[in-house]
Amino acid sequence: MSKQCGGPGAGAGAGARDPTALEKCMQGIIEVFHKYADSDKDCQYLSNKEFKEMLKNELPSFIAAQKDPNVVDNLIRSLDDNNDNKVDFKEFLNLIAGLSFSCERMYAQKKMKK
Amino acid sequence: MSKQCGGPGAGAGAGARDPTALEKCMQGIIEVFHKYADSDKDCQYLSNKEFKEMLKNELPSFIAAQKDPNVVDNLIRSLDDNNDNKVDFKEFLNLIAGLSFSCERMYAQKKMKK
Repeated sequence: MSKQCGGPGAGAGAGARDPTALEKCMQGIIEVFHKYADSDKDCQYLSNKEFKEMLKNELPSFIAAQKDPNVVDNLIRSLDDNNDNKVDFKEFLNLIAGLSFSCERMYAQKKMKK
Repeated sequence: MSKQCGGPGAGAGAGARDPTALEKCMQGIIEVFHKYADSDKDCQYLSNKEFKEMLKNELPSFIAAQKDPNVVDNLIRSLDDNNDNKVDFKEFLNLIAGLSFSCERMYAQKKMKK
């Protein structure tokens, strides 16, 4: 991973340091994307098949909570900004940001009730 | 954390399951935001002081790589979409997405050189 992301050898000055909690999260998101995107030769994109596999394995609660049987196809369509019928990393980040935003709202409301 | 985010008890059906790698990343981003935002009474926002503390502790390599001495103030201004002089979670996510995107570009280029 690149130094700016806090990858190995990221420490400014002498000696490497461990990535911070936030750097680990960013690295983790990149690694999850490539875990699925790299399963075919086209490593910069999630094909429909790779995207569905990622959702099933990485976001099972999100999928289980959906009522719409076509949620996956609709999700791919809504994420696919450039209509190339596949999901690139930027479009993947939009999904992660959207989910994190709604989770944070619930997290904040739960904290206020305490 | 809420069930949709794969928090404790997130498993659909009988018994809880551990969060997936991606769910841990999303939870981690929410927890880092609140680690700093909650240091004052206004838990939904990072004040300038809280934002600078977060950058210093969580993104030291990013800060060390910047040439502009005013990078932090400029960063707050560029993130502060609604001009309320503080950073909410959505604006924080924009920073994380921007950094993750540039890190993924470097990650992908490094992989292609191998």
